Amino acid sequence: MDKTNEDSTGKLLDKINSPADLRKLPLESLPALCDEIRQFLINSCAVNPGHFASSMGAVEMTVALHYVFDTPDDRIVWDVGHQAYGHKLLTGRRDSFATNRTMGGLSGFPTPSESEYDTFTAGHASNSISAALGMAVAARLNNDKRNVVAVIGDASISGGLAFEGINNAANTPNNLLIVLNDNDMSIDRNVGSLNSYLAHLTTTPGYNKLRLNIYKTLKKMHLVSERRRGAILRFNNSLKSLLVHEQNIFEGLNIRYFGPFDGHDVIKIVRILTDIKDMEGPRLLHLRTIKGKGFEAAERDPAKWHAPGKFDPSTGKRECDDKAKKSALKYQDVFGEQLLELALKNPKIVGITAAMPSGTSINVMQARLPERVFDVGISEGHAVTFAGGLAKDGMQPFVAIYSSFLQRGYDNIIHDVAIQNLPVTFCIDRAGLVGEDGVTHHGAFDLAYLRTVPSMTVSAPSDSATLRALMTLAAEHPDGPMAIRYPRGTAHADLQAAEVTVTKGRGRKLSDGSQAIVLSIGTVATDIQKAIAQSGISATHYDMLFLKPIDENILREAAESHLPIITVEDGTLKGGLGSAVTEWMADNGFSPHIYRIGLPDEYITQGTPAQLKKLCGIDSESIAEALKSVCNAQS
Amino acid sequence: MDKTNEDSTGKLLDKINSPADLRKLPLESLPALCDEIRQFLINSCAVNPGHFASSMGAVEMTVALHYVFDTPDDRIVWDVGHQAYGHKLLTGRRDSFATNRTMGGLSGFPTPSESEYDTFTAGHASNSISAALGMAVAARLNNDKRNVVAVIGDASISGGLAFEGINNAANTPNNLLIVLNDNDMSIDRNVGSLNSYLAHLTTTPGYNKLRLNIYKTLKKMHLVSERRRGAILRFNNSLKSLLVHEQNIFEGLNIRYFGPFDGHDVIKIVRILTDIKDMEGPRLLHLRTIKGKGFEAAERDPAKWHAPGKFDPSTGKRECDDKAKKSALKYQDVFGEQLLELALKNPKIVGITAAMPSGTSINVMQARLPERVFDVGISEGHAVTFAGGLAKDGMQPFVAIYSSFLQRGYDNIIHDVAIQNLPVTFCIDRAGLVGEDGVTHHGAFDLAYLRTVPSMTVSAPSDSATLRALMTLAAEHPDGPMAIRYPRGTAHADLQAAEVTVTKGRGRKLSDGSQAIVLSIGTVATDIQKAIAQSGISATHYDMLFLKPIDENILREAAESHLPIITVEDGTLKGGLGSAVTEWMADNGFSPHIYRIGLPDEYITQGTPAQLKKLCGIDSESIAEALKSVCNAQS
Repeated sequence: MDKTNEDSTGKLLDKINSPADLRKLPLESLPALCDEIRQFLINSCAVNPGHFASSMGAVEMTVALHYVFDTPDDRIVWDVGHQAYGHKLLTGRRDSFATNRTMGGLSGFPTPSESEYDTFTAGHASNSISAALGMAVAARLNNDKRNVVAVIGDASISGGLAFEGINNAANTPNNLLIVLNDNDMSIDRNVGSLNSYLAHLTTTPGYNKLRLNIYKTLKKMHLVSERRRGAILRFNNSLKSLLVHEQNIFEGLNIRYFGPFDGHDVIKIVRILTDIKDMEGPRLLHLRTIKGKGFEAAERDPAKWHAPGKFDPSTGKRECDDKAKKSALKYQDVFGEQLLELALKNPKIVGITAAMPSGTSINVMQARLPERVFDVGISEGHAVTFAGGLAKDGMQPFVAIYSSFLQRGYDNIIHDVAIQNLPVTFCIDRAGLVGEDGVTHHGAFDLAYLRTVPSMTVSAPSDSATLRALMTLAAEHPDGPMAIRYPRGTAHADLQAAEVTVTKGRGRKLSDGSQAIVLSIGTVATDIQKAIAQSGISATHYDMLFLKPIDENILREAAESHLPIITVEDGTLKGGLGSAVTEWMADNGFSPHIYRIGLPDEYITQGTPAQLKKLCGIDSESIAEALKSVCNAQS
Repeated sequence: MDKTNEDSTGKLLDKINSPADLRKLPLESLPALCDEIRQFLINSCAVNPGHFASSMGAVEMTVALHYVFDTPDDRIVWDVGHQAYGHKLLTGRRDSFATNRTMGGLSGFPTPSESEYDTFTAGHASNSISAALGMAVAARLNNDKRNVVAVIGDASISGGLAFEGINNAANTPNNLLIVLNDNDMSIDRNVGSLNSYLAHLTTTPGYNKLRLNIYKTLKKMHLVSERRRGAILRFNNSLKSLLVHEQNIFEGLNIRYFGPFDGHDVIKIVRILTDIKDMEGPRLLHLRTIKGKGFEAAERDPAKWHAPGKFDPSTGKRECDDKAKKSALKYQDVFGEQLLELALKNPKIVGITAAMPSGTSINVMQARLPERVFDVGISEGHAVTFAGGLAKDGMQPFVAIYSSFLQRGYDNIIHDVAIQNLPVTFCIDRAGLVGEDGVTHHGAFDLAYLRTVPSMTVSAPSDSATLRALMTLAAEHPDGPMAIRYPRGTAHADLQAAEVTVTKGRGRKLSDGSQAIVLSIGTVATDIQKAIAQSGISATHYDMLFLKPIDENILREAAESHLPIITVEDGTLKGGLGSAVTEWMADNGFSPHIYRIGLPDEYITQGTPAQLKKLCGIDSESIAEALKSVCNAQS
């Protein structure tokens, strides 16, 4: 089992069009099926990139869960969903799996609108226990006999939401089963005491032996039957507490605990699940797994293989490794390097992230100044409040969190930072449209929800130079909370040749024209410059840089020009830049013609960034069309 | 000590103008000082209402903390802050305490802008550990030798943010001390497995006896000194683990645990704190306290005495008990009764709250249908996601949470409810200005942040009848998430005589006029009706009822009237109703004169609701003035 059988021909997998087909297989064929699934994942992810290593590690538990439970009537709730590719293959999506993460294709995450087997939205960590508890309670209220299972990794279970779910699950009548997929690994290495606690949880060999003997004795006495297995396991469990002289955390919280067991022994997992599935009350099954299991390169460096991009399935060589040296600078690289530079000059600067050190590139500073960078694990709320505490006692924290995840810190931003006007800088990566990760990951709301927060400065760079300049401003003039949001991906060419410095609340003019005024925030500026050129419209283009405080001189100039005003942003139109402009005009007695371009008030699908920009009308062609139609309507 | 000494004359307390004065007192005088503080609190809270019972229970720990620690250089971070009145008395605010919770007076919560002893914003539960950890880490980075203490109750520690803080504290080098104030009680009775776990934590008598013997033996051998106490306690602590055969949850998470100890034995607490204050690494001291301690009526019914209003200090009779029968109907009462009525008709309806069953009046349904109401404790994020799970499997959850606390569920609303368009109804109490609780509690942002969420219906009733009608709409036409937000306090008289039914996305006309159009959302409608009468302006007044979807027929009518439009709301002007109106006008090619009234982009202080409405210009006089000035400017 340690190596994937390269001869797997898919003869078992090919016949599984739903879990009902899986359940017809004899138990002993499951290891071979697991091999086939692994081979399928390797072949598929090699050419169509996705989240590889997590799904490789979850193959056996996936097969066992669908084998034992009567899905879709029984519910499996996957946390985050990186690990659910095997689940997709077994639930009627084998043939469409080649479309994974493409526009119009399968979502890379469990998605209820895609399949009845995908029971709940996944993507943001730690929600599975709360959601599954809701389903378990609904089943009880409706007298449905179904089982509900939450599958959660060791990184996700350390999030506060998961703890709230466990705390409530233990206290509400329900039959929830939590499967803890413990690979001692999150995207980056997990950090936190619960994690190290899990690593030390063991069942003593003495106990395991005794347990077997008791079972055999009872069997001889004809007291063992499939029906009675649950009762015996329960008895053994109490026995364990007695013997190991250690109260398990979960048992302390009234969750019956089973484990840890080998998460790659599919036959054993089937047996255990069969034993415990009909027990009453909340239970936790702890499985130890290896992220990337079955693909040697991924087992060796699972973090690198979390989402490896394209690779050669035979050599384990990743395409991105070849290109590494010539790959274009990303915004996250600019952030990482600039933060280090600022931190070397200013000892008050500390870095904080919530389980995204490499994704945000805060690991650049971490490598050099490890004692001043804090990866707090999956706990965005804590990351923000912790930064507040640091700032209150004189530090200048830079908090690097992806836009859609920072939504979890909204109250912390208000209550623990902004009310006290503390100098915390939020460096918000993955703002705007993120591409293939899709609906749960777009950073669509940050501009709008941050604008509601009094004392918050809200900014967005339009290129590398302004990102650096905004960070410098935050570092050198710390006068309160400041948000700097920028997108995923390659940094645009700098829009101005000269060295850029920025002043709080001041935008800059990128071009001069006579037919229209374009006001934009963020990296859409480059698209606008192209659009102006393409359209042949003579437009004055202001790069606002700050949504709040907004540059009132620019707004006044725009208003007094009597030209049509076009606003462009890659955030929701409900409450963002365009909204701020219409508010200001109303409040200041102006009534210009304003045309607003931005993300629509709907959930945006997955696709390439270019596809999605077009879909939302924020690509240069769409903006050019808009410019022409506004100016023609006007003339 | 069980009874407050009614002869306390304040002779000790009167001389304490800062903790430095406290620290000059001999240890043995501290019990008498505690009596004086209790008497002061009783006398003061009897006439100037506040959070009474929590502070009564925390007197000894407050005195002990300031006695042992070198405040303000050492940091004490109070969680929530209901318990911090004694702290205010000892830190130079005894004479101004009579102004507690009044406009321009002391805040009812620790407030950094008020005192250097108030180290961090408090009000929203569970933030103290994260904030204090930030301070402890800042101290370490700056080589400051100071101690940092977080004081947190057993209800607050069950919040996910507190767990995230603990999980991180155990893993980051720091010397944080967490004092767990365990009164087995939150505002309403606490719920959750951590809480029941805490209740069962005991130290065996055998252990305590052995410990004492060891201490005495060491003392005889001259091995005991004040300096070495810490080492001995540490040793005893390991001994305890050995003896009680039980691993404590906190120790499982690498937090050194001490307790539980009697939280009302001030001399003992001083000794323990002295023992453990200079130990390295994160520690938790578990104190058992009695909420309301020292005032018999409050000890008997601490929930009732959480914030009792005025009372007779000698008889323990609360003013509100007298008035109970004739007290005016509050919005929360309307909600509570209507929810029960709807739930009796529709078995799919379930109720959820996060530790606010009586504050929201969801306890009306709870009393009648206990199996269909879930109080999940202080865990707003979980409350929302749990509701999502219930809704996904066919239930119709009504989630009752205060506006400012629901900020904690922003991401859960998007990710776990709205993306799936699940029929969860958010009944958001304490929206708008809440009065005396002040800056942390105003529900200023809900309209604006909820408007950013695609698929969310956002509504606000203007009176009891529309609150009932909106709830009925949600119950009878469940087609996605819906927010209904309404204020604290007495329900306004119904604005229309006839039975009211509402249609999603449709507002209603409250008056007809020829000089201006007023568009409002929420209970400001009553003030506007008064303002129109006062001003003598002839105005058409639309009660929008829905911020989203907004009634476009009304907006079009308003635009085409060519009259000035005045928008009024009791939420932030950044992104709310006025903003939605200016957006719509721009998007639809209209440029009317729009005047926006609402909450300014700043943090709003405490005061009576009337004072605060005036301050923000949303009282009827201010609106009348605005109406006149807009119409006069126009003519």
